[in-house]
Amino acid sequence: MTETPSWKVLAAAHRAKQQEAIPAKWTLDAEQLSKLKNTGAPTEGRLVELDVARKSGLLSENELNITEKFTATELVEKLATEQLSSEEVVEAFCKRAGLAQQLTSCLTEIFFEEGLERARYLDKQLKETGKPVGPLHGLPISLKDSYTVEGKHATVGYIEFLRRPAPTTNAPLVKMLLDAGAVLYCKTNLPQTMMTADSENNIFGRTLNPHNTNLTAGGSTGGEGALLAFRGSVLGVGSDIAGSIRIPSVCCGIYGFKPTADRVPFSGQAEYPFPKASLLGVLPVAGPMANSVDDLDTFMKVVLGQRPWRYDPTAIDIPWRAAEATKGGSLVVGVMAEDPDYPLHPPVKRALENAASALEKAGHKIIHLSADPKRSAGFGARIGFQYFSMMGPHPDVISEQVGEPLVASVARMVHPFTTAPMPVSPEKDLASQFAELNEVRDSYVESWQKAWIDNDLDVVLAPGAATTAVPHDTYGNPVYTLMWNVLNLPAGIIPYGNASKDSDPDFQKAKAVFDADYDPEALHGAPCTLQIIAPRFRDEECLNAMRIIDKDIRL
Amino acid sequence: MTETPSWKVLAAAHRAKQQEAIPAKWTLDAEQLSKLKNTGAPTEGRLVELDVARKSGLLSENELNITEKFTATELVEKLATEQLSSEEVVEAFCKRAGLAQQLTSCLTEIFFEEGLERARYLDKQLKETGKPVGPLHGLPISLKDSYTVEGKHATVGYIEFLRRPAPTTNAPLVKMLLDAGAVLYCKTNLPQTMMTADSENNIFGRTLNPHNTNLTAGGSTGGEGALLAFRGSVLGVGSDIAGSIRIPSVCCGIYGFKPTADRVPFSGQAEYPFPKASLLGVLPVAGPMANSVDDLDTFMKVVLGQRPWRYDPTAIDIPWRAAEATKGGSLVVGVMAEDPDYPLHPPVKRALENAASALEKAGHKIIHLSADPKRSAGFGARIGFQYFSMMGPHPDVISEQVGEPLVASVARMVHPFTTAPMPVSPEKDLASQFAELNEVRDSYVESWQKAWIDNDLDVVLAPGAATTAVPHDTYGNPVYTLMWNVLNLPAGIIPYGNASKDSDPDFQKAKAVFDADYDPEALHGAPCTLQIIAPRFRDEECLNAMRIIDKDIRL
Repeated sequence: MTETPSWKVLAAAHRAKQQEAIPAKWTLDAEQLSKLKNTGAPTEGRLVELDVARKSGLLSENELNITEKFTATELVEKLATEQLSSEEVVEAFCKRAGLAQQLTSCLTEIFFEEGLERARYLDKQLKETGKPVGPLHGLPISLKDSYTVEGKHATVGYIEFLRRPAPTTNAPLVKMLLDAGAVLYCKTNLPQTMMTADSENNIFGRTLNPHNTNLTAGGSTGGEGALLAFRGSVLGVGSDIAGSIRIPSVCCGIYGFKPTADRVPFSGQAEYPFPKASLLGVLPVAGPMANSVDDLDTFMKVVLGQRPWRYDPTAIDIPWRAAEATKGGSLVVGVMAEDPDYPLHPPVKRALENAASALEKAGHKIIHLSADPKRSAGFGARIGFQYFSMMGPHPDVISEQVGEPLVASVARMVHPFTTAPMPVSPEKDLASQFAELNEVRDSYVESWQKAWIDNDLDVVLAPGAATTAVPHDTYGNPVYTLMWNVLNLPAGIIPYGNASKDSDPDFQKAKAVFDADYDPEALHGAPCTLQIIAPRFRDEECLNAMRIIDKDIRL
Repeated sequence: MTETPSWKVLAAAHRAKQQEAIPAKWTLDAEQLSKLKNTGAPTEGRLVELDVARKSGLLSENELNITEKFTATELVEKLATEQLSSEEVVEAFCKRAGLAQQLTSCLTEIFFEEGLERARYLDKQLKETGKPVGPLHGLPISLKDSYTVEGKHATVGYIEFLRRPAPTTNAPLVKMLLDAGAVLYCKTNLPQTMMTADSENNIFGRTLNPHNTNLTAGGSTGGEGALLAFRGSVLGVGSDIAGSIRIPSVCCGIYGFKPTADRVPFSGQAEYPFPKASLLGVLPVAGPMANSVDDLDTFMKVVLGQRPWRYDPTAIDIPWRAAEATKGGSLVVGVMAEDPDYPLHPPVKRALENAASALEKAGHKIIHLSADPKRSAGFGARIGFQYFSMMGPHPDVISEQVGEPLVASVARMVHPFTTAPMPVSPEKDLASQFAELNEVRDSYVESWQKAWIDNDLDVVLAPGAATTAVPHDTYGNPVYTLMWNVLNLPAGIIPYGNASKDSDPDFQKAKAVFDADYDPEALHGAPCTLQIIAPRFRDEECLNAMRIIDKDIRL
């Protein structure tokens, strides 16, 4: 038996290579970085509020403008009409992403040089042919690490994958984005197992929240959340089976969208280095993250316009539609009731209430849905947890199997998620368990459908989580996101205000196992968000409602 | 323990009640019936060719016209504009369905009186309001027995269900059809287990093929096939997990369409009276059967226009689109290669060849796909068979569980379907078997997608079966239908010509276990058909291509 390098050696080597991928002229030394973030209370670690991108001196005024003033949808327009070159746009985002990485560890694979090369090629093409190569011509897009890109590692944070060659193909969605003219320049960080809300692993370390580095950036698409909030990307791609697009959107105060399953091609992802069971009762979903609803919509329209079936025969190949008009131009919005087992933090509750009254004022019909155990977030999440328990492996065995220690947030999840009983006896054999759980899931689906129809709802307004971003390794049960995965309904996050110790000064002890306390001081300033949910396959109507709501809550 | 009536007593009582549901004035006595069918060679039992509906003297000229001269699409137009009343249309089809039942045992539950009552109500509504109640106002529609209708038994041929009360609700699809203004008047026969191609069970007996009563009508939606071919219905609803819509369409020479799974709501069906496993690797699909492509299209458009999600939250709620135009108005048609393990009967081969050359002549591009084991019908079917083996129960235990004997076609299926090995070792535990089989299935899906893309195909032209209708209890492995269920692609059947002992005079011995020999004498006159398949979720394009092909093969 030959000796193989220890996980520590492999991880350190890969990290060193990663660091080298940021050009030296775009890096700051330790002292400069420390000065930028360690400003002492009350702004300590608040990178967005402190405007460290500007203060770093790395970006020109033009680059600050490019990264801060436009949506991806606007950039695409400017790129196609040569008001901006792809090279300058990509360079601006590379620089800013490099800085984000130095401050928050939000990246995994970094390939700025190749991104710039492709940008120059696209600029040349446009000049020569007069035509953009596709609807995303020249636009930089960042990807969650799990999406395979030819020649780039997709370790998803497992040392084991460093022992294997890098993928030799692009995932279907990656191919589609490239065919649409996008420029790839980096992949983003995520948690070991991809099943926690703290994006930490033994290769790339822990992603910090740019709004407050003491708080989690969320997970599993946490690197994307941090990068977008820092504006080191204008459009990113995540994936979501329990909230992995929406939790980082909640934590980092950005826009995120989990479509109905399979509308966006999901296949071709790295996940876990060893085989897992595939009794999938909850489907993983690919979707966009951005700083505007427009950009979520642009992503969906462009991807679905590419004939997904040609890239991934398991995707649902149906063109993006124009959203159906709402009755009389206004929405019927059902406000989801809090699950008494998972009480909302005061700022989350306040954001929901403010939104509901703003929407009512703007002429929408608001219906407060009753708290019904048959529709509760906790019940839905328990269905999801039991499905996950069948997919394995259990965290207990992961460490042994992959030959590296568990990170803190994964180790913590070894304990049962909940003290409530599982919906189906876990004593039963796997096939019967699966069959019975499908029935329980279907009844949950029907209860929600009934609420929708009885109240003639367009969308449901719900919290994206019981909390805002919380201190590292304390994020609780993701019941308010997971329930919508179990229901397979399109769901998006809209940022709306911030936690405030002045408005909500009282400490609130958590009730459920694992959930974080509300600590007004620690959470002050954390972004608040809303979640908007539409019926299955009404992704178009979901984004349309998000656009209306995003505007009307700010009237 | 109280004594319960034997299965024979229960079945006989139910059959007697069924007989009474046909008004006496619409029945013929045994002698009259015998005279109609037993004409001696060469027309013996050829009810369609013999025009027995006219000869029976039961239908007026107007009723013969209504049942023979119009598509459902045309009838709907005439009903909405009061050129025909629903009462006269429904009465015409009830009479003809009653006659079909007397000659072919194609019905299960018969409720002509209620159908006529609803027809009169709809006529009155239209007169009073000037508006049809929906897009199917007044149109009679027949249903496979498995669709639950309030107050009507859905025994699916099991005596066990006669021991239980009749369903108290309508299946979602039934509700949708009623909300669209349709009139229900009967349900149609099917095989015990719904997993054979001979629609026989211990309650309702065996459905005969109206083209030749010595041949099978196919299954599992065999009653529907016979009823439509006899024109006792103009539009029927079937279901299909291995070919159950398409096999009767093949056998009875009608049009049938299996959409992509879940586009038409499937839930609310009676199936097997005891719990089964639900490891569904192949999804059951609801779809229409008719005498024209137009009517298949009308069914899809109307059903999908009703917002399926409101009736069945597991359905894929996406509106029916206008089909995308084909390149230059003509089609690229890939002709599927015969699987050498399942050779086609000469008339089937001839129909395919004639169709391909007619289409070429009409300006379409014909590409003969190579015979590739990775894409073969037999391989696809074996994947399907293994999935079915996980759904249980095995026919071995059915008889004991339900307390009635197996019918011949089910008993025959107790033997292994094929001597080829299963794609995954059946020794493995169920969950691993399922996981590995999913991978095999995905590779099969990819092989077909590649063929589609490499050849830039619009549709595939394939046989609907290796054979035409064959003598009772001899229908072989449904590999040419099941493969498309495994692939989950929309697929439809078009009738095209007939078997002829003059054109194909040579006997051909079957090769595969279970497959029927080609006997020129026995199969003479049996309808031939084509199968048209489109990419997943391109149901609109599939029907559009079927319409074009249906026209151009007859130029």
